[in-house]
Amino acid sequence: MDAIYYQCKLDRKIPVPLYYQLKQFMVDQIEAGVLKEGDPVPSEEELCSILNVSRATIRQAFSELVNEGKLRRQKAKGTFIAKPKIQGSFFQTISSFNDEMRAKGLVPSTKVLDFRVAREEEAAKKLGLDAQAPIIHLKRLRYADAEPMVFVETYLSYQKYSLLLQENLEENSLYAVLDKCYQEAVHKVSRILHVELADRPLARLLHIDSGSPIYTVATSSFTKAGQPVAYSISKYRGDRNEFRVDLYRE
Amino acid sequence: MDAIYYQCKLDRKIPVPLYYQLKQFMVDQIEAGVLKEGDPVPSEEELCSILNVSRATIRQAFSELVNEGKLRRQKAKGTFIAKPKIQGSFFQTISSFNDEMRAKGLVPSTKVLDFRVAREEEAAKKLGLDAQAPIIHLKRLRYADAEPMVFVETYLSYQKYSLLLQENLEENSLYAVLDKCYQEAVHKVSRILHVELADRPLARLLHIDSGSPIYTVATSSFTKAGQPVAYSISKYRGDRNEFRVDLYRE
Repeated sequence: MDAIYYQCKLDRKIPVPLYYQLKQFMVDQIEAGVLKEGDPVPSEEELCSILNVSRATIRQAFSELVNEGKLRRQKAKGTFIAKPKIQGSFFQTISSFNDEMRAKGLVPSTKVLDFRVAREEEAAKKLGLDAQAPIIHLKRLRYADAEPMVFVETYLSYQKYSLLLQENLEENSLYAVLDKCYQEAVHKVSRILHVELADRPLARLLHIDSGSPIYTVATSSFTKAGQPVAYSISKYRGDRNEFRVDLYRE
Repeated sequence: MDAIYYQCKLDRKIPVPLYYQLKQFMVDQIEAGVLKEGDPVPSEEELCSILNVSRATIRQAFSELVNEGKLRRQKAKGTFIAKPKIQGSFFQTISSFNDEMRAKGLVPSTKVLDFRVAREEEAAKKLGLDAQAPIIHLKRLRYADAEPMVFVETYLSYQKYSLLLQENLEENSLYAVLDKCYQEAVHKVSRILHVELADRPLARLLHIDSGSPIYTVATSSFTKAGQPVAYSISKYRGDRNEFRVDLYRE
């Protein structure tokens, strides 16, 4: 495996930093399919001696590659070539997580962590309801190929959408169930995107390190008549997801 | 100022954690305009005694509020109510940073950090050019109301867009200049969004702590005929920006 790294020729005569040349070499090898997902990367010491550079050089290259999701560090095991991120079109189209993952050839699955009726003042406000109105609170962890990708908390009016409670939301997507029970309930969604650092409970759910960057997306959905349907907060792993939008000039 | 906090009635009889009640109280006060941007927040000790709760409770509430951008910690000075985030529509429409900030009543400004012709193999590849083709490399730091918001590196073919080098890109937006020199050069853009942690040099530019979460957006722009125009990487402060998209069902 390490033989590949002997082909990395660092050029000390050009004004490009050595760490950057090493990083570029690895990115090229990943893109060319020479370095593959799960391949172990030599240790810092080994690479120092293969490439005849300082440890700081290796470290800088690795830390940028980890930050960009190209490498993955695993405690007590070493550093590996990471899986490519899943490219979502969450900001371009309304589609269910299940449909989106299937379109990419990934197998989606969902674990319902909690599904109950409760008082949720904040959510009630977002749904345009009285603070004391009973709210359906659904917590789901969603997977692609058995790997956790996003933790979603969804809130709906219990009075309006009580039929939902009889549905199996591990088998069916919320959109599909809403369509079935309420005829194309959702017409419009507004999403607001933030970046945050994962706290410990979330990190545990998503199998990432606490303090890793995540996407937090607050989504409000509405009927054609402009009535609120659901309010949700989705927390996506930063290391495994990227989002794409295509825009055209008006 | 601290008088407000005496109005926070924590209810020990409900199953809502105290830290969450405190957090919710502060969010409500911020939304109601009672707590305003720049207001100092009492120290942990003071709040412990005002509210008669443990320090861990205060800490949990503060750390979530900092993470969500509602509070801002300043070294050796204390904790303050943060400015509301600027809501961008970067993922919804093609518009210049200048136009977008002005539409929000903010004063945009730009500092050109570097503007030169160089070899940039990676960028050349993205632009569909030969690896050795000369590339215009533009580095800009962009501000809203004199506060740094985003660091942008832009790459264009020197052969195609050499006229740009005579332009003042602190005064004019790149889109405006491209339109002027090349008649509506940009027709389509594709953006890919990642989250990352700011490294030290970037953190210094953006006036944030190293390790803070940032948005990284790679944008490729194209002419109507599908020819690449520019490739750029924008790094947005996570604490001061949020993005919104509205989507309609097809």
